[in-house]
Amino acid sequence: MYDVEKIRADFPILHRQVNGKPLVYLDNGASAQKPQVVIDAISHAYSHEYSNVHRGLHYLSNLATDKYESVRGTIARFLGAPDEDEIVLNSGTTEGINMVAYGWAMPRLQAGDEIILSVMEHHANIVPWHFLRERQGVVLKWVETDDSGALDPQAVIDAITPRTKLIAVTHVSNVLGTVVDVKSICTAAHDRGVPVLVDGSQGAVHMPVDVKDMGCDFYAITGHKLYGPSGSGAIYVRKERMAEMRPFMGGGDMIREVTRDTVTYNDPPMKFEAGTPGIVQTIGLGVALDYMMDLGMQNIAAHEADLAAYAEQRLTGLNWISVQGQAAGKAAIFSFTMQGSAHAHDISTILDKKGVAVRAGQHCAGPLMDHLGVSATCRASFGLYNTRAEVDALIDALELAHDLFGDA
Amino acid sequence: MYDVEKIRADFPILHRQVNGKPLVYLDNGASAQKPQVVIDAISHAYSHEYSNVHRGLHYLSNLATDKYESVRGTIARFLGAPDEDEIVLNSGTTEGINMVAYGWAMPRLQAGDEIILSVMEHHANIVPWHFLRERQGVVLKWVETDDSGALDPQAVIDAITPRTKLIAVTHVSNVLGTVVDVKSICTAAHDRGVPVLVDGSQGAVHMPVDVKDMGCDFYAITGHKLYGPSGSGAIYVRKERMAEMRPFMGGGDMIREVTRDTVTYNDPPMKFEAGTPGIVQTIGLGVALDYMMDLGMQNIAAHEADLAAYAEQRLTGLNWISVQGQAAGKAAIFSFTMQGSAHAHDISTILDKKGVAVRAGQHCAGPLMDHLGVSATCRASFGLYNTRAEVDALIDALELAHDLFGDA
Repeated sequence: MYDVEKIRADFPILHRQVNGKPLVYLDNGASAQKPQVVIDAISHAYSHEYSNVHRGLHYLSNLATDKYESVRGTIARFLGAPDEDEIVLNSGTTEGINMVAYGWAMPRLQAGDEIILSVMEHHANIVPWHFLRERQGVVLKWVETDDSGALDPQAVIDAITPRTKLIAVTHVSNVLGTVVDVKSICTAAHDRGVPVLVDGSQGAVHMPVDVKDMGCDFYAITGHKLYGPSGSGAIYVRKERMAEMRPFMGGGDMIREVTRDTVTYNDPPMKFEAGTPGIVQTIGLGVALDYMMDLGMQNIAAHEADLAAYAEQRLTGLNWISVQGQAAGKAAIFSFTMQGSAHAHDISTILDKKGVAVRAGQHCAGPLMDHLGVSATCRASFGLYNTRAEVDALIDALELAHDLFGDA
Repeated sequence: MYDVEKIRADFPILHRQVNGKPLVYLDNGASAQKPQVVIDAISHAYSHEYSNVHRGLHYLSNLATDKYESVRGTIARFLGAPDEDEIVLNSGTTEGINMVAYGWAMPRLQAGDEIILSVMEHHANIVPWHFLRERQGVVLKWVETDDSGALDPQAVIDAITPRTKLIAVTHVSNVLGTVVDVKSICTAAHDRGVPVLVDGSQGAVHMPVDVKDMGCDFYAITGHKLYGPSGSGAIYVRKERMAEMRPFMGGGDMIREVTRDTVTYNDPPMKFEAGTPGIVQTIGLGVALDYMMDLGMQNIAAHEADLAAYAEQRLTGLNWISVQGQAAGKAAIFSFTMQGSAHAHDISTILDKKGVAVRAGQHCAGPLMDHLGVSATCRASFGLYNTRAEVDALIDALELAHDLFGDA
């Protein structure tokens, strides 16, 4: 039984007011709030169990290392990775995808080689590939979404040519909520010998993920969207790709031996983890993922599906609101514009006065904004602790904004 | 008046026991413990003021952005940087130096170009340059320390040739405690048109830093050694070098506009800060630096100088201990070996039984270990909260280890 009120009690920030109103936090796509167990784990680590990891032999160092390293297994379990050595710990998706761009793609791709992207990628899954275009002549090939915001897996596969070296695609659109059939893409891409990177920043938050079943080569997650600390994250790298990858950042821990003239590297995944890591935020991420798994990813998905259906119904009832993206089975992420002259920023400011936190802008998705023909949207993105009453609060605040700005 | 007992009361972990003994934490060179104000700031941020930064317009996003961005000014003040826009926020020194290697050096240096390093650099200030050696034929030139562990600035300057493109040198050795006269190096290097990167991982912890007076081009710091959260840090980049640098990681926040065919970048320093940053750890770092500045960096330096003098006197009294590094004015970092067959790891294990946390190994300084002709050392590294009584506890524990292992 998914008791959302009980869950809400776990998140201290949800009890605060904003502008004299109870906080209605619908900016989960940007970052999620943290349960008390995560906050407590951070305080506990710093107050009682803190030390640097890996290099020490004293009690606190061993303790911190055990706590830190155990998270690798937690993440492997969370993602269905066959082996925890396929998990590289990092600061989030941006670092993860940059590691793949610098460590795997940069030394392998030649001018004229192609990377396939969907038009709804987040900048974190675009700009690292633009670097390769700018710096070494790699070609970016874009696949459109259809009018509903859905991405046809076949359209992705049809874009493959003999020059295609990588498909980089999001699991869930951070703007439209579209869920991409990444499994079909991976299966067909592998038949053609093309690796697939999946940006799981949003996907892993909203549904069970099984990278083995999915068949992807890379799956990047970011801890702060997963109810974990800022600056935490990981990327799953299939063992064969890991073996092909050269180090990204250099420093302590990722080496075996350093002399004046030579350097040899540690075994993966340590080879890709340079310097003192985000020790305590990683420990906090482990607690956050345990929290989610205890609730059950299927249960979270079901709760959010209910919220999505209700929000869609309520938003559809406002004939002066245009929702971007109606793909079947979409996640509880709603981008919208209001008829008339009201800019998304103005709308979000009005909503904020009513305590409703939404995001307004391009949502780090420039090409998608061009594709949609809009300069900005408001985005309400739901999480595991949101409620139907909060959907109602959003609607009420939108009606106020419409009264102020709308020219219906 | 520097009241070390009052200061110790601020650090909750210092009151715990390890193996039934009061913790004597002498592993500060690896990572420092955190005062309650830092731990509280983290909890407070997550419990009451958390949101993603920069991209939001709602109350919590503005609040988190203000708190986060204010740290840039705190760091600028801490380092004496003329302009807070010369501060790039990151996850620590390793990321900072890799940013310089990938963003500044990689596109500029050709095969045969030279980088000058001291032999006592940490791997974080070696391996990124080895990458350039391996990948594009850059030549690493090493400057020796003298028998005391001092680095003669003139020896560094004498190593400059017309092919020298960068000097990368530590401010304080993490193994020997040697303080390098980086100002003299910067002055002479600039006369010859050679930029200087200073690894401030240890230096900024132990003494006042003024990058303007020092005249360096890059100064990297790491938050977890500065009594701040893990995964926090920054690098000062002189404006002229910033203008020469291309982006390192790609993603959100660091762009101005992204289309399918083009990308334009944000102004520095944002150009070098991709994706959602370590929001809360950066806020915590600001609190930690304020804590240090409130104590006074001169006062911290004076306290640690007293500890260093006392520790040197006590260690010198043990004729079966060899301390590595006796440079004048060295920081309170003592690496040592014991006569006889006792390995550094065994010694540290015995010390741990007495509650004394020291590090044993190569300390991420392979070339220095070769230079010293040792395979490993024990290292006791002191911080602002350590006491003379803790020096005594170290000596007592060493005497026990000597009784067990020594063959005097």
